[in-house]
Amino acid sequence: MADVISSERVEGTNVYNAAGDKLGTIDDLMIDKVSGQVRYAVMEFGGFLGLGTDRYPVPWNMLKYDTAQDGYVVPLDKSQLEGAPRYGYEEVPDYDDTYRTNVDKYYGL
Amino acid sequence: MADVISSERVEGTNVYNAAGDKLGTIDDLMIDKVSGQVRYAVMEFGGFLGLGTDRYPVPWNMLKYDTAQDGYVVPLDKSQLEGAPRYGYEEVPDYDDTYRTNVDKYYGL
Repeated sequence: MADVISSERVEGTNVYNAAGDKLGTIDDLMIDKVSGQVRYAVMEFGGFLGLGTDRYPVPWNMLKYDTAQDGYVVPLDKSQLEGAPRYGYEEVPDYDDTYRTNVDKYYGL
Repeated sequence: MADVISSERVEGTNVYNAAGDKLGTIDDLMIDKVSGQVRYAVMEFGGFLGLGTDRYPVPWNMLKYDTAQDGYVVPLDKSQLEGAPRYGYEEVPDYDDTYRTNVDKYYGL
């Protein structure tokens, strides 16, 4: 079994692009209540890319864990993120079927 | 897809026994870093059962989500929990192979 990490510690885990540049951090996880499978990592790309403080839900299966960097790698660049679904820190959406479908479609899933 | 819940909101989700009595709450989740699957719910049974403030890791597949109660049900009673693996709030173990095997064995998995 792979290593486990506390949900309390996931907040702040680094996220990198394929080139190894740090994009930001994971702010929160959206978890399937029944199966316990993480469905979305909610990312904060803040200052580094100039994308502000919005939160970006990214489907979990787009993330790859890199043990060498002790963080996650996503195959995304700034241009892809500029049009991506996002919300303000105090405006978390319901993550209902419609919202999840829209997020998945944006990423081609 | 079932409803999702924020990892930040999981803290405090109620846990019930099969009879519907509230046992305590989920304090934290231990998540497989690679797959994103929750492996253990870390529970706090505190005052209700007189079990103190220790944390109890319980294998995720022992939990059933009950939409009516908006919480999780575990098939455990006080006598089973009295001998269960636990740790103090400030003494989180490494959750290495040995530790996880011990927890799983305690619950017969």
